[in-house]
Amino acid sequence: MRKRPIVLNIKTIATTSFFNIEEMDIEFSNGSKRIYERLKPPGNGAVLVIPMLDIETVLMIYEYSGGTDRYELTLTKGKIDGGETLIEAANRELIEEIGYGSNKLTFIKEMTIAPGYQSSITYIVLAQDLYKASAQGDEPEPLEIAAFKMSDLENLVYNEDLTEARSIAALYMARDVINNQ
Amino acid sequence: MRKRPIVLNIKTIATTSFFNIEEMDIEFSNGSKRIYERLKPPGNGAVLVIPMLDIETVLMIYEYSGGTDRYELTLTKGKIDGGETLIEAANRELIEEIGYGSNKLTFIKEMTIAPGYQSSITYIVLAQDLYKASAQGDEPEPLEIAAFKMSDLENLVYNEDLTEARSIAALYMARDVINNQ
Repeated sequence: MRKRPIVLNIKTIATTSFFNIEEMDIEFSNGSKRIYERLKPPGNGAVLVIPMLDIETVLMIYEYSGGTDRYELTLTKGKIDGGETLIEAANRELIEEIGYGSNKLTFIKEMTIAPGYQSSITYIVLAQDLYKASAQGDEPEPLEIAAFKMSDLENLVYNEDLTEARSIAALYMARDVINNQ
Repeated sequence: MRKRPIVLNIKTIATTSFFNIEEMDIEFSNGSKRIYERLKPPGNGAVLVIPMLDIETVLMIYEYSGGTDRYELTLTKGKIDGGETLIEAANRELIEEIGYGSNKLTFIKEMTIAPGYQSSITYIVLAQDLYKASAQGDEPEPLEIAAFKMSDLENLVYNEDLTEARSIAALYMARDVINNQ
């Protein structure tokens, strides 16, 4: 029933320091044609990490976010560097942003954020069995860390500082994984 | 503790048919300076709708997504048109994409998708008490509709066709809202 459209042509139409925009000529199986645009970043995708200080306590951060021009309550995330596995990237970001490493990193799910116009993939990783560790990241200012209880997740998701869909989805999925351990 | 950075300057650096990219000069309260880029679309944001055929059954769609160049299992979504409320937009998208309207639309949550570099807001709306209705949308091909049981959500989120973080987060939040009704 789902007969994949044909991508007749793809070309880059704009490039900035951070973004790369492609234009796609697409022909659907019913003959209709569309021109789509999408963000097509280089690189290996990103990780988002749910760090559990104990079975009940998740560590989150307040980070200034340019897109919304405000502090967002979010989970640790960052790009996967060349030559890194996603698990290595998750542990590195955790050490840089939260001040902990993890002895138990579990890949949970591959997510997209806006598949209609972005190719980006985020790998969701649960981090348990934490140990103290630190390293200099590329943050412009120290991140404020905040602890929340998973048992309060139903209320936490209504916190107005927590808006990022990936973080909300990851918290719910992590809770299910922990409950099934 | 969180002392908001100063945005010294914002300018548009690239515009295409679909995207508008801004560059921001930012000075953090500790004096460090950064140049950020962000997507700043015009308009009023988007709605994402969780349509419940009955207390247990959610209606989803398979939609070709240019960003990932594949069919994604997702919830109904679309932009809010000028002059529309978010509830009106939710009902219109539902009618166009799923073939149902709703007598009971409940706003649940305002979400962002990548607040670090996107200003976009998505309003999550639960749709219940559905009635049959149809209207022509702007889809290039008919959408395939698929029904899933909320009681199976823990498995559904591992479906490889379901990757979009907003849809996963919205399904979990809708389940909580329905359970509390």
